Amino acid sequence: MLSFSIEEYKLRVKETKKKMLEQGIEVLLVTNPANMNYLSGYNGWSFYVDQMLVVMIDEEEPIWIGRKQDANGAKATTWLYKDHIIPYPEDHVHSAAKHPADFVAQILTQIGQNNRRIGLEMESYYFSALMYERLKKNLPSARFIDASLLINYVRLIKSDKEIEYMKRAGKIVEKAMKTAVVSIEEGVRECDVVADIYKDLISGTKEYGGDYPAIVPLLPSGANTSTPHLTWSDKTFKHGEMVIIEIAGCHQRYHAPLARTVSIGKPSDRIMDVSKIVVEGLNEALDAVKPGVTCEEVERAWNKVITKYGIVKESRLGYSMGLNYPPDWGEHTANLRKGDQTVLQPNMAFHLIPGLWFDDYGIEISESFIVTKTGCEVLSHFPRELMIKGEPSILL
Amino acid sequence: MLSFSIEEYKLRVKETKKKMLEQGIEVLLVTNPANMNYLSGYNGWSFYVDQMLVVMIDEEEPIWIGRKQDANGAKATTWLYKDHIIPYPEDHVHSAAKHPADFVAQILTQIGQNNRRIGLEMESYYFSALMYERLKKNLPSARFIDASLLINYVRLIKSDKEIEYMKRAGKIVEKAMKTAVVSIEEGVRECDVVADIYKDLISGTKEYGGDYPAIVPLLPSGANTSTPHLTWSDKTFKHGEMVIIEIAGCHQRYHAPLARTVSIGKPSDRIMDVSKIVVEGLNEALDAVKPGVTCEEVERAWNKVITKYGIVKESRLGYSMGLNYPPDWGEHTANLRKGDQTVLQPNMAFHLIPGLWFDDYGIEISESFIVTKTGCEVLSHFPRELMIKGEPSILL
Repeated sequence: MLSFSIEEYKLRVKETKKKMLEQGIEVLLVTNPANMNYLSGYNGWSFYVDQMLVVMIDEEEPIWIGRKQDANGAKATTWLYKDHIIPYPEDHVHSAAKHPADFVAQILTQIGQNNRRIGLEMESYYFSALMYERLKKNLPSARFIDASLLINYVRLIKSDKEIEYMKRAGKIVEKAMKTAVVSIEEGVRECDVVADIYKDLISGTKEYGGDYPAIVPLLPSGANTSTPHLTWSDKTFKHGEMVIIEIAGCHQRYHAPLARTVSIGKPSDRIMDVSKIVVEGLNEALDAVKPGVTCEEVERAWNKVITKYGIVKESRLGYSMGLNYPPDWGEHTANLRKGDQTVLQPNMAFHLIPGLWFDDYGIEISESFIVTKTGCEVLSHFPRELMIKGEPSILL
Repeated sequence: MLSFSIEEYKLRVKETKKKMLEQGIEVLLVTNPANMNYLSGYNGWSFYVDQMLVVMIDEEEPIWIGRKQDANGAKATTWLYKDHIIPYPEDHVHSAAKHPADFVAQILTQIGQNNRRIGLEMESYYFSALMYERLKKNLPSARFIDASLLINYVRLIKSDKEIEYMKRAGKIVEKAMKTAVVSIEEGVRECDVVADIYKDLISGTKEYGGDYPAIVPLLPSGANTSTPHLTWSDKTFKHGEMVIIEIAGCHQRYHAPLARTVSIGKPSDRIMDVSKIVVEGLNEALDAVKPGVTCEEVERAWNKVITKYGIVKESRLGYSMGLNYPPDWGEHTANLRKGDQTVLQPNMAFHLIPGLWFDDYGIEISESFIVTKTGCEVLSHFPRELMIKGEPSILL
């Protein structure tokens, strides 16, 4: 069931240890499910209970610690030897009396890791403040170091195989976006459009199936387009409404996000103008992408366009992404925004999402791209414009 | 867009304050998205960035603090006054330089809450260890108290309106389960079955639409049924394989989970026997449910049955559930297991999931139920047995 060769996983562990050495970390507790998957292949919806990989600087293979029920899942999905899979008893699950942190501390002590410099992913969604408190209490001789994004930064540059998976995700989202734009009509319920989108995202193509995206389809309509993170309801679309569709194809946990905006009926001149500004800025930003350029320079290319038209956007223009689990497909490392001096290199991947949200409407038209040796390549090919339904100008 | 009357939300805040008083908490920082929704109505996929409600013991309305981009979402989905919605700037998002914790501490100081007894949800997925560290540093005069499950325990007993939403979710999952059992056939890809399931879960019924469940469909097949939390792949089903389907209908964020097991072709005698034991135990457990009985007594009724047949199950038999967001529909409060002396009361809701996992296969046949005045009522009506495909005995 491995998505990559064992050599690729071992290379990732090696790169992780290089960074551990640089940051003076001897033991790294990996709780971010994307990072667990990245190093070991582990893949299951079990991150709602405490679990982790333990990477030791002087040990070739990581150790998996998780719930007993999930140990067979770890055997099925990872390249780790069976004796590196250490389950904790079921009575530690969501219990006031027993906590997995105590088990973890006991294991670390048994294998002589209790007085080392231990890296913690302090901002991982699945590393709780309570786990942190109890590890500190149970491992008084350890020194703890924040290593929140250590592996995320290893993930920043993708392998060719990872890029291949992302391109497949790009094909999947193309198909789902087409379905979304076709399905949205006056009188249709939001939930029915999302049902159609989901069907395409999950069935994927004939050649490769779809996986669940780390974020559900976002589909605000009408005045709700003024804010980006509302999901859907069972209300029906009305003539004259705008609808934002932000979705991602996913394959083997690798993402290709894509956003488009639909106008049901003819949009106002102002909305038409703003959509053209967004596309102009998006094109300028994509043109600016090439190895050696910084993230903030890409944002500057966009900003120059909108400034010309008197528009201000405070939020970031985009972010690094790839492998992930809910609640976010973003990697939390490089951002296309002012002040980010990350230098672009081939095989980095971004979601470039020039969303503009005003008081009573918003527009999103986005692209996901890979940095190539000479520029960039987008992951999906879909008309880069405001989609207008019920008018002869519709292009699908 | 409110799912409940303002009176119901205010009652929930009142109940929360009662528990705060009991636990000596003056200010409660609510970061669990289900708890945020429960008190304020807030509903958006924005929990991948820091956000919270601040409940003050001497203030009627909570305060919402979140990302600027999401403030319009808070205005659209909550009953809070606009001046109780306090956004932090966009440059605080996933940034090494600025952290929302500093903003939160500043606001708490400005409104004179910095030297109070502050409750924290120490095991909320969306309250990071780093947030905790930085709040402690920035609020040196505050005293922090673990209040992880304070509101979860208020949620334990549902209102009639909440039960109504859960019943709708039960209807939705009935439909999706039927589709799943019909779709599973030799030669069909796992992803295509999940695509069909999703379509039904999200479109819901004609009367009410479906919402995204807090856990994606779990669909292990073959040897992978020996572990409960694997999702799906694009491999095809084979004759003779077992398939576990664990899904939930969701409406207005309220869940009705349901699990069934399918055998593609005639199962072995052993599997047939085990499935009958599971159903017998499930029926005994449901029969034991009534107000005044404890959670562990329900588990005991199940355990008596499997012990008779020489089977041991270490993991819990079920758990309280209802309103939730990814990654879990469980409430993390009452569990149907040994040692849990929670006394059942009308309008509690549980997922009773007698899963058995052996070395090379597993069986799950579950029911979600509401405690009534005299016993219990299941949320879905679906044949309670091993589903056998490709044989004349199939009952659908």
